[in-house]
Amino acid sequence: MKIDVLTLFPEMFPGVLNNSILKRAEDIKAVSYRVVNFRDYADNKHHTVDDYPYGGGAGMVLKPQPIFDAVEDLTARSETENPRVILLCPQGARYNQKKAEELAQSEHLIFICGHYEGYDERIREHVVTDEISIGDFVLTGGELGAMVIIDSVVRLLPDVLGNEQSHMKDSFSTGLLEHPHYTRPADFRDMKVPDVLLSGNHRLIDEWRAKESLRRTFIRRPDLLEDYLLDDQQKKWLQEFVKEQETNQKDK
Amino acid sequence: MKIDVLTLFPEMFPGVLNNSILKRAEDIKAVSYRVVNFRDYADNKHHTVDDYPYGGGAGMVLKPQPIFDAVEDLTARSETENPRVILLCPQGARYNQKKAEELAQSEHLIFICGHYEGYDERIREHVVTDEISIGDFVLTGGELGAMVIIDSVVRLLPDVLGNEQSHMKDSFSTGLLEHPHYTRPADFRDMKVPDVLLSGNHRLIDEWRAKESLRRTFIRRPDLLEDYLLDDQQKKWLQEFVKEQETNQKDK
Repeated sequence: MKIDVLTLFPEMFPGVLNNSILKRAEDIKAVSYRVVNFRDYADNKHHTVDDYPYGGGAGMVLKPQPIFDAVEDLTARSETENPRVILLCPQGARYNQKKAEELAQSEHLIFICGHYEGYDERIREHVVTDEISIGDFVLTGGELGAMVIIDSVVRLLPDVLGNEQSHMKDSFSTGLLEHPHYTRPADFRDMKVPDVLLSGNHRLIDEWRAKESLRRTFIRRPDLLEDYLLDDQQKKWLQEFVKEQETNQKDK
Repeated sequence: MKIDVLTLFPEMFPGVLNNSILKRAEDIKAVSYRVVNFRDYADNKHHTVDDYPYGGGAGMVLKPQPIFDAVEDLTARSETENPRVILLCPQGARYNQKKAEELAQSEHLIFICGHYEGYDERIREHVVTDEISIGDFVLTGGELGAMVIIDSVVRLLPDVLGNEQSHMKDSFSTGLLEHPHYTRPADFRDMKVPDVLLSGNHRLIDEWRAKESLRRTFIRRPDLLEDYLLDDQQKKWLQEFVKEQETNQKDK
């Protein structure tokens, strides 16, 4: 996969792209990154990339020319066809794991990161294939959103994750939140590990983990249970949790 | 505000913290950053920070000792009391702008970033004050989540944003998505700016922008309209959009 990033702040990227899984992915040639300052594509004397908005108002707007030319040049220079051109913006579709899996099928992703400026609408209409928001919060620019998407997509590419890491990925995809984890020491400053985990009885351990996984999901993310197919044991546990919750509320 | 980050990958941070608004915030002393490798706090000979999980299974678990000691040390070294200790994890509460505003009131934030390991449950129970997830997607570690939260919080601190940027922030907080923006040239490769924006008639321009802002929200984020108080003009426009949508669906 080829990943191109268009940004006015290219210095933000090397620290993230040259570490951990993203670095490993480049080392094994699963991906190649190219971070480009789109100011270099501005065809005016002062390399201006933004201008005042038509119709007046505060704030600047990113001009169409540098972005159009940059995307066309990066597309021509890569050997892939039909890149996904992703605009990070608050108006975009909410990002999720399904979208990550979809993007992971593509051969070429181009990210457009603006800062506090707006984007000329013609960029959205004629260059961009995907407008994405990573959440309902205001960020200074699209760079952090691009890094988040790059990380979540690249780790899905073949051979990128080692065994250690792919375990954690799998455990997320059961549809429930993970059960609590404990490691040594069994007693840390009088805070103790649950006895069952020290028992060596693997039937009981598996049962405890399954139950605590369900409990955590019930308490923190009940929305995940709406589409989840519960077995008979899980249905009983859920009734138990509901009763505990009612008792707790009465006590208050 | 003091911001501390505990991570095994401190090299990921300078590129992000030393640019744009986050840099400016540090320059005007609105915030100070400290990025700490919590491996430095491991009290064992090999500076191990993780260990096998009690009860068996794949994957490693972050030990309590280095994290407890690091948080206690950073709290003691800062002159603030009761820091918010934020754990980035998929099981956390979903991050949003309301949470950003809440965190912006705090004097001291400490972020704990794990990678593919799990966290010993005693860290969650006894050290952490906030478990946060930035969205339903799988990331390699907590670092990108911490950067996202830092950016969204720091830009809310007094005097951090200049006039240019605060405009864009305000426009998000109307509760609707922004209207389209256009800048020069009026004709770019035969793609034209809407006539109304070139008219100089500010009543018509304001009306066009208000309508397009509502249209974009209706099409892309109808959920935002559920809590939104529409005026009479907006109600009429909305009926218009619904009719247009019905006509479009018939045509298909």
